Amino acid sequence: MIQLSEDQIVKVTGDVSSPKGFQAKGVHCGLRYSKKDLGVIISETPAVSAAVYTQSHFQAAPIKVTQDSLKHGPTLKAVIVNSAIANACTGEQGLKDAYTMRESFASQLGIEPELVAVSSTGVIGEHLDMEKIHAGIELLKETPAGSGDFEEAILTTDTVIKQTCYELAIGGKTVTIGGAAKGSGMIHPNMATMLGFVTTDAAIEEKALQKALREITDVSFNQITVDGETSTNDMVLVMANGCAENECLTEDHPDWPVFKKALLLTCEDLAKEIARDGEGATKLIEAQVQGAKNNLDANVIAKKIVGSNLVKTAVYGTDANWGRIIGAIGHSAAQVTAEEVEVYLGGQCLFKNNEPQPFSESIAKEYLEGDEITIVIKMAEGDGNGRAWGCDLTYDYIKINASYRT
Amino acid sequence: MIQLSEDQIVKVTGDVSSPKGFQAKGVHCGLRYSKKDLGVIISETPAVSAAVYTQSHFQAAPIKVTQDSLKHGPTLKAVIVNSAIANACTGEQGLKDAYTMRESFASQLGIEPELVAVSSTGVIGEHLDMEKIHAGIELLKETPAGSGDFEEAILTTDTVIKQTCYELAIGGKTVTIGGAAKGSGMIHPNMATMLGFVTTDAAIEEKALQKALREITDVSFNQITVDGETSTNDMVLVMANGCAENECLTEDHPDWPVFKKALLLTCEDLAKEIARDGEGATKLIEAQVQGAKNNLDANVIAKKIVGSNLVKTAVYGTDANWGRIIGAIGHSAAQVTAEEVEVYLGGQCLFKNNEPQPFSESIAKEYLEGDEITIVIKMAEGDGNGRAWGCDLTYDYIKINASYRT
Repeated sequence: MIQLSEDQIVKVTGDVSSPKGFQAKGVHCGLRYSKKDLGVIISETPAVSAAVYTQSHFQAAPIKVTQDSLKHGPTLKAVIVNSAIANACTGEQGLKDAYTMRESFASQLGIEPELVAVSSTGVIGEHLDMEKIHAGIELLKETPAGSGDFEEAILTTDTVIKQTCYELAIGGKTVTIGGAAKGSGMIHPNMATMLGFVTTDAAIEEKALQKALREITDVSFNQITVDGETSTNDMVLVMANGCAENECLTEDHPDWPVFKKALLLTCEDLAKEIARDGEGATKLIEAQVQGAKNNLDANVIAKKIVGSNLVKTAVYGTDANWGRIIGAIGHSAAQVTAEEVEVYLGGQCLFKNNEPQPFSESIAKEYLEGDEITIVIKMAEGDGNGRAWGCDLTYDYIKINASYRT
Repeated sequence: MIQLSEDQIVKVTGDVSSPKGFQAKGVHCGLRYSKKDLGVIISETPAVSAAVYTQSHFQAAPIKVTQDSLKHGPTLKAVIVNSAIANACTGEQGLKDAYTMRESFASQLGIEPELVAVSSTGVIGEHLDMEKIHAGIELLKETPAGSGDFEEAILTTDTVIKQTCYELAIGGKTVTIGGAAKGSGMIHPNMATMLGFVTTDAAIEEKALQKALREITDVSFNQITVDGETSTNDMVLVMANGCAENECLTEDHPDWPVFKKALLLTCEDLAKEIARDGEGATKLIEAQVQGAKNNLDANVIAKKIVGSNLVKTAVYGTDANWGRIIGAIGHSAAQVTAEEVEVYLGGQCLFKNNEPQPFSESIAKEYLEGDEITIVIKMAEGDGNGRAWGCDLTYDYIKINASYRT
């Protein structure tokens, strides 16, 4: 193992089971034809946990059950996740099923139900087949740990698994943070939801973790957009089990900033992977805004840019279309002085002094043919910075969303 | 002529030149290859006028010139409009050109420049060829009136002209309201902008007209979306020249409500035609929301529905996908009690009591194969009602926007 200095954060090969004391598993319980569809993360010891949930008015049953678990106390020993069926818009029976799922898995682990979180993703408006869930939980018991199986079990229309891992040192102890996520389209009967699961062996005080997760979510998962939609089931869960035996982290701890930075990097990696794997996407688009009135304004503008259908189609068409970027900035709610906005793409300035600037279309086109496109906006309103991530809008997005039921 | 009763509003065949004392013209001045590209509306007498403008931070030069004209006094005798070049993001020179365009046309009419409004639509970031504009203004002088020519001259990528006309009676006098508009995609270098021009021979007090236009715009032009974008050049202008010789309308006039209703119908017609003719669109989608907390909430929800890429692709794919409608409602900023939301499509209830309802997929599919789709949402939050209009999202939208410069 590399010796880490106190403010060093290293990206390593790893996943949600890399932090000490965690294991992850996944099985095929039959909700889908053949793909794994039921997964769990289990911590040896109770893990201080924090979660953020969808802002949709139609929150799915598992979200309510996880909220209930965390209301009983800030620790979890496990989370159980199924794909294929979102258990959203399923009324009283759906809520009962989500509680049963929690109960059943807790009973197998021999722990209180309130130490288990529940998460679902997939078709909305359909009920879980509880026989399959129970059989799947039985199967999990005899299934060896395998984080790749977990990562597969949580996917719906995603084309790739999404994982990341970082190491850092806290007071001489090595701390590991691992993450897994699923994304793709945002909401519809056949497939839905963005889920993020982060594990760490760091010892952390509960309130600091919840606060950090909220702040970090705002600049990572909340700054991505595939199609501007919010699912009924969106959730990000962080579990910190303390197995690294570091001195408990609080906001006042000297190593708190470096831990927070590592948690941010973990969430950013997952968020970007979700954007990159958006339905039909061929490119990741990052918008960077500098010099906005404040960070909030910068994030608003960045998200407007990556959320614009016209910017998304221009990137797909490798068209250095500064007018669409200006259009997106123009109707943002942020403070914008037109004369002070500068637009850069691949190092070239496309727009400045409220006029287009001469630039090489061929260099721009070559840049846009890559699979990671960064649009940089410089402003002179203040010192606010922000970023957002999205993907291009392609024929395949229309194909996936207009014809999958026909 | 039919004798109209006091509260009767009749839709008639007509356009912006139907109200007494108005004429409209259009010519080809050479900004485009062959299509007419310069048009004017002229009133015999000074017309009390009101306008609403784009909220974009990047307002085009002609918008600033029209604002200047209306700052000098609330009357106009003419508006001059060109397509092909938006004269937006064109710096000082662009502003100078827009003033020159106003001056030049005013001089031909022998009136003060401040009696002329200017409007442009088309490519942004490019300068007007002022020689062509001057030649076009010369040509207009000898060109006979023709409102069809005006309607053509204001179009960019629109596939059809957009016009409407209503008659009503005010104190025994017949009053006519005519309208023309252009829409299509919202903003990009090659084509942009939604413009609306409304003429009426009614005599109206200035403040009442401005207030009515603002209110009506909020529930008509501001409730349409093609791709969620706002142009640098958007403008709606109403000119009321009093040639009908009615008693001057004020907010206290007994016939004010019927006039306002007719103005609303005019704007709604134009707005719906813009939505129907959105880039690549094959269908008009209307969302009706009933029983929201208030009208504002109802309008917010309605616009979320017609603005959702997933709803738009579902309608294109004739898929009665209630989940996407729920998704759009779910992440609106409005007050929503999930258990009380009902979703109707073509007379069938798809969703109620937070659960999907049994419905005939084949009847729904048949309904969705039509070219006007209405989605009805019933809620129990209050007595707020609202509507919004959009179009489906198709392969052609991607084609138009991803490949037109290649």
